[in-house]
Amino acid sequence: MEEVSSRRSEDLATDRRGLKVLTYDECLERVAEAPLGRVAFEHEGDVIIMPVNHVVDGMAIAFRTTWGSKLQVAADSGRIAFEVDGHDTTSQTGWSVLVQGSATLVYEAADRDRLDRLGRSSWAPEVENMFWVRVLPESVTGREILSASPE
Amino acid sequence: MEEVSSRRSEDLATDRRGLKVLTYDECLERVAEAPLGRVAFEHEGDVIIMPVNHVVDGMAIAFRTTWGSKLQVAADSGRIAFEVDGHDTTSQTGWSVLVQGSATLVYEAADRDRLDRLGRSSWAPEVENMFWVRVLPESVTGREILSASPE
Repeated sequence: MEEVSSRRSEDLATDRRGLKVLTYDECLERVAEAPLGRVAFEHEGDVIIMPVNHVVDGMAIAFRTTWGSKLQVAADSGRIAFEVDGHDTTSQTGWSVLVQGSATLVYEAADRDRLDRLGRSSWAPEVENMFWVRVLPESVTGREILSASPE
Repeated sequence: MEEVSSRRSEDLATDRRGLKVLTYDECLERVAEAPLGRVAFEHEGDVIIMPVNHVVDGMAIAFRTTWGSKLQVAADSGRIAFEVDGHDTTSQTGWSVLVQGSATLVYEAADRDRLDRLGRSSWAPEVENMFWVRVLPESVTGREILSASPE
């Protein structure tokens, strides 16, 4: 995995937008804790965003889905993004972590079994043609809004 | 806006993944009610997902951001996606609405003033070089998980 800039940042570093920069470890913690993430990828000129129940598998993020063919095309032609976020409407605070990398379908039975054992199955109904997809992160960045905007 | 298939669906229609198909009106209601959405677009070969505080402006969705230049490139070269979702961890249920369209920067003062008056400002700190971006929807689709997966 590429060294990412947030890894070298101080805890209270802010970016040019005035947002707190999350450290690499904070980003990974939030990915691991989030019950739900979202993936986005380009497919035939359209950008698609879909929620997924993910698991952390070593350095990778994995999820089950039926869109094997779409994601295979995405993996061949470009990159994929994975995001988790959280917010508090009352305090108008929130955070997000963006993971960018390439997606591959998981074909090996041993890998599929290990992912099945990681346990958090998809909330969506079980249907045929479900695939495990693994995202290998090349960039991991996170931002947090610490307080409400003055207005 | 294009007529979308979900508009003609029955309330309890399900897709091939066993998910309830939200009607067009249900999709718009959920977009309007959500305090936070996410946009995704392709930029220089990468897919970016970022949370935004959005407003509904007639048939369009608008939000303030500092990434004018990135989004302008995205608008020139491809399409953008906007997503809102919600979930309940206990019941393992959730829903999501995906809006696909093209993004344009809002230059006209009258338009910017109207968007400012729509009132929900960004939670992020106010910084210079904030732009209003408008997404003109070409496709609006939504899905809901009504009950937990059997396992």
